[in-house]
Amino acid sequence: MAVLPLSPTERSTPNRTKHRTLTDRAKLHEVLDAALICHVAMIRDGAPVVLPMNCVRDGESLLLHGSTGARGLREAGAGARVCVAVTHVDGVVYGRSLVNHSLNYRSAVVHGLAREITEPDEKLRALRAIAEHLAPGAWDYAVPLGPKDLAGVTVLAVDLREASVKARTGDPTGDAEPDVAAGRLWAGVLPLRQGFDEPVPSGDLPTGLPVPQHVSLREGVPS
Amino acid sequence: MAVLPLSPTERSTPNRTKHRTLTDRAKLHEVLDAALICHVAMIRDGAPVVLPMNCVRDGESLLLHGSTGARGLREAGAGARVCVAVTHVDGVVYGRSLVNHSLNYRSAVVHGLAREITEPDEKLRALRAIAEHLAPGAWDYAVPLGPKDLAGVTVLAVDLREASVKARTGDPTGDAEPDVAAGRLWAGVLPLRQGFDEPVPSGDLPTGLPVPQHVSLREGVPS
Repeated sequence: MAVLPLSPTERSTPNRTKHRTLTDRAKLHEVLDAALICHVAMIRDGAPVVLPMNCVRDGESLLLHGSTGARGLREAGAGARVCVAVTHVDGVVYGRSLVNHSLNYRSAVVHGLAREITEPDEKLRALRAIAEHLAPGAWDYAVPLGPKDLAGVTVLAVDLREASVKARTGDPTGDAEPDVAAGRLWAGVLPLRQGFDEPVPSGDLPTGLPVPQHVSLREGVPS
Repeated sequence: MAVLPLSPTERSTPNRTKHRTLTDRAKLHEVLDAALICHVAMIRDGAPVVLPMNCVRDGESLLLHGSTGARGLREAGAGARVCVAVTHVDGVVYGRSLVNHSLNYRSAVVHGLAREITEPDEKLRALRAIAEHLAPGAWDYAVPLGPKDLAGVTVLAVDLREASVKARTGDPTGDAEPDVAAGRLWAGVLPLRQGFDEPVPSGDLPTGLPVPQHVSLREGVPS
């Protein structure tokens, strides 16, 4: 797939720390693909609202979904303008100076209209993408979605055209030269990492039922 | 401190999954205190915007801060209405049915006006709270903030009065009784945990400078 430049609209062009602004679409995809949830902002009764939602990237769209009863999703699906953010915190940065303490992070912000996916085949394909992201392998293993399940879920797509992605990585910066030269104060990064623990079987499973491979061999699960 | 009930305003009362809505203030504090960042939504030019920001709870306020040059912060500080969300993803829930796959999470949403803290003593106290949360011990160890540093940072406070907190924990629910009784399909939770890795010294440190205790003994850092 061709690598498109990120949107050059004013809204999606960060106004500062431009050195932390990444400009390729592959980076945007990488940040979104590492996320299970995003934060979706919309306007309700003239006030901003932000809610966490499950998400998965599907090509150049971000898919959101939830119960048809969820008010935020219903409102967003009615063609509302939304803004979606995904942020990963990668570490605490310790400078020699207090002011140079910071966080390492990767962050994506998408502006757009949420479009509800209603066409049955498209909706089923979207739900499969959502399931494969949340729980790879579950689509083929678990009891499939029935008509009632399909009716009970709303799926929205947000176009990734107008997006920005930023990151801070690596060592602290900005410490005064004399403080660096003195070599007395420690500086560095305390990396933060999110990972899986061992699977915990449901309390109502029969004893001895083995953990299926789509769970036990999922990337990042301790073996 | 007295435990206050969470706000009963309509905006901060989730309209569904009420069993996942927690009603005590201690839970709200716990969710906020576990976060290094939050997502702040505001309205800009009639459109919703959401941005990640550092945060720390200080009593019944959430403190946000950033460079005075940061546009989002500047706008929020001018008395704008904001909505702030903090979400922790605690695990992937595997149901026997695809529709009962879910996430375990803890989430807080706060509605309010952001108030800029300008009074020098209050601002210094807020910055100390921010520093002690981001990097406990750094306030006493690192080169302190100078007047220029203080002028270069904006601190906002958002009142926690109007807030909601939700959580999903534990086993999958909703699977059909015959599927549970059959005992053929696995169900359970794959816990997700965020933790620190070993500290990484800055590339420009002299060899052999030991990691100070406020970093090496920070809660969660591998010993």
